Amino acid sequence: MNALRIFLLVMFCTTLPKHLTAQDSPDKAVRAVLDKQVLAWNTGNIEGFMQGYWQSDSLRFASGGNINRGWKTTLERYQKSYPDKAAMGKLTFSNLETTVLSADAALVFGKWELTREQDKTDKDRPHGLFTLTFRKTPQGWKIVHDHTSSGN
Amino acid sequence: MNALRIFLLVMFCTTLPKHLTAQDSPDKAVRAVLDKQVLAWNTGNIEGFMQGYWQSDSLRFASGGNINRGWKTTLERYQKSYPDKAAMGKLTFSNLETTVLSADAALVFGKWELTREQDKTDKDRPHGLFTLTFRKTPQGWKIVHDHTSSGN
Repeated sequence: MNALRIFLLVMFCTTLPKHLTAQDSPDKAVRAVLDKQVLAWNTGNIEGFMQGYWQSDSLRFASGGNINRGWKTTLERYQKSYPDKAAMGKLTFSNLETTVLSADAALVFGKWELTREQDKTDKDRPHGLFTLTFRKTPQGWKIVHDHTSSGN
Repeated sequence: MNALRIFLLVMFCTTLPKHLTAQDSPDKAVRAVLDKQVLAWNTGNIEGFMQGYWQSDSLRFASGGNINRGWKTTLERYQKSYPDKAAMGKLTFSNLETTVLSADAALVFGKWELTREQDKTDKDRPHGLFTLTFRKTPQGWKIVHDHTSSGN
């Protein structure tokens, strides 16, 4: 590559409008939130996991036939359901599909699965589906609504 | 009310921008779709109920741990699960909350319940929660994604 090409490439990259750069695309931004959630969960850090959620009383978390409202209530639900690292197990998200609905709204659909240390027989692998609604907030992209269901 | 007031009122109503009129608001439009679905269901008309869904192979229907894709597959799932009017029962939607995400996207969250004729004891009332993603299509507002979960 000659000097002119390098110069043009540098010019192109540095003058690209900010909203077109990869780190700002809603798709990448929401994936980054989910990646951080998984990392936090897998180190036993529920509060870290909860950073992906909107810290608002309006956060809505639906699971089975139950609705929890508010960030704190959702945190407490997780803390109660997963009292220690062994109960939390190893979380994986898969089959993620992101649909950007507007400049500040996106939908993420996917599968979740927990693998637990004590599970040697593959008989206790909680799993299911989730539909997440993300909004772009002043604190970045956050989950404002979570509908989770468990498989049999 | 005098003639001038009536004249001004008529002028106001007829010159109101089309996108501000009630029949075009996403909130009212998606509620109308849901009302039609309930009416169709309660006359035993599953195909009519399915008119609320996007007629596309990309329609996504998540329930428990299962995903169905496509309008036809979703129709067949309903027909199999609810073979006759008695099984369909009377459908009600309640606690509906609509969030307009953009000019062509909205989220509707709510509760569903079936009351069946044979149920005299209140012990068999299937119920649960749903999260619907609506998009405005050339055929009007349609559900493009449905995540439904059942209560215990």
